[in-house]
Amino acid sequence: MLFFTQCFGAVLDLIHLRFQHYKAKRVFSAAGQLVCVVNPTHSLKYAPTRCAAAQASTEQGTLPPCHHHEAVHDPQLVPCTCPLFSCPWEGHLEVVVSHLRQTHRINILQGAEIVFLATDMHLPAPTDWIIMHSCLGHQFLLVLRKQEKYEGHPQFFATMMLIGTPTQANNFTYRLELNRNQRRLKWEATPRSILECVDSVISDGDCLVLNTSLAQLFSDNGSLAIGIAITTSKVHSSEAEM
Amino acid sequence: MLFFTQCFGAVLDLIHLRFQHYKAKRVFSAAGQLVCVVNPTHSLKYAPTRCAAAQASTEQGTLPPCHHHEAVHDPQLVPCTCPLFSCPWEGHLEVVVSHLRQTHRINILQGAEIVFLATDMHLPAPTDWIIMHSCLGHQFLLVLRKQEKYEGHPQFFATMMLIGTPTQANNFTYRLELNRNQRRLKWEATPRSILECVDSVISDGDCLVLNTSLAQLFSDNGSLAIGIAITTSKVHSSEAEM
Repeated sequence: MLFFTQCFGAVLDLIHLRFQHYKAKRVFSAAGQLVCVVNPTHSLKYAPTRCAAAQASTEQGTLPPCHHHEAVHDPQLVPCTCPLFSCPWEGHLEVVVSHLRQTHRINILQGAEIVFLATDMHLPAPTDWIIMHSCLGHQFLLVLRKQEKYEGHPQFFATMMLIGTPTQANNFTYRLELNRNQRRLKWEATPRSILECVDSVISDGDCLVLNTSLAQLFSDNGSLAIGIAITTSKVHSSEAEM
Repeated sequence: MLFFTQCFGAVLDLIHLRFQHYKAKRVFSAAGQLVCVVNPTHSLKYAPTRCAAAQASTEQGTLPPCHHHEAVHDPQLVPCTCPLFSCPWEGHLEVVVSHLRQTHRINILQGAEIVFLATDMHLPAPTDWIIMHSCLGHQFLLVLRKQEKYEGHPQFFATMMLIGTPTQANNFTYRLELNRNQRRLKWEATPRSILECVDSVISDGDCLVLNTSLAQLFSDNGSLAIGIAITTSKVHSSEAEM
């Protein structure tokens, strides 16, 4: 009986995913573009000061350890810079991708241009939507976060991080694009390195920021489709070395 | 003596304007693009409910009267929809442009693509930067407003209004573009009609919205350069008739 219930659940999930996929294709109407449905990760309560010490260690090439923040008392410990900050894992850059895939079941997509379809935008803040994106020989992490910067006024913040060093990140440009209801919003910037703290990028507002009302205008039935494109930005490479 | 003091003041103003103009050219580096320096208009305190009655009269083709809101008691009077809402003027659409030019000294610029350079971004909210833009046979009003939607957290809101009816407005698309520090933000939408209320567009957040931190990233020495382009959107014209 349990087996049949599980099978029925799996079929329902497949139908739901198929429906979301169809919606994303309809929203973007860009035939051939890869659409990935991303379900939310309901985050633990954010610790506002956990980024402070992480900024100093961004060029060392190793990822600072992730700790349960309630347990961090030793000032020598570097706070977590991983978006899934409740994870106690620590390791080098080279194994971050396999850790995120295996432990956190974060999907990885191939291709220079993809569509990120975040579902259930109505869920209360804080909530994260995360996906990995593999292109141009590197892996990127897209983080969409719903957060209340001003109490009672949730906003959406979207940014792209390179799973690499800041120097490597300076060689790329990422573009996030929303397109619906005769409105279009495009954000282009240099990705940050995953060694920097995603929380500080978001608290600085140096990313695509959407108020709830604008997010609703761009949403279709509770799902937000974000077109993502990554290109190399060789013109900036000389500045990156400075 | 007074004459010489005034002459000296005028020369200083010219040098300042020349400097702002040079800065805008440097920011956009788009040779040949018309740059207009726009000084702020420090607004009176916003009356939050003044838009409520204006929405019903947007298709009548005449501009509702502008009144000092402290004096509005008669429920038959339509509240002001003019961005310079402290103005007591009332009139038909055809004479709005000459009123704005003559009474409020709002500049009007010609050309499909211009650069709007808003100075003194540090001034406290509420503050407006307003310019008229003439192209494709119509006049548009660009309003950049600094406002505290959440107390203590000023934000910048930019929108474009057609000095015409909503049906006419549906035939156009406007684009606002910020480009600095290896970041680019583009907003494209259908302009609203000046018969609609600019306050409600801003309070709905259906416009380009910038947090203070992002505005600072795009600013150069306290001035924000916004590239503006207007095109006809014939694909939308059938929807506009609905």
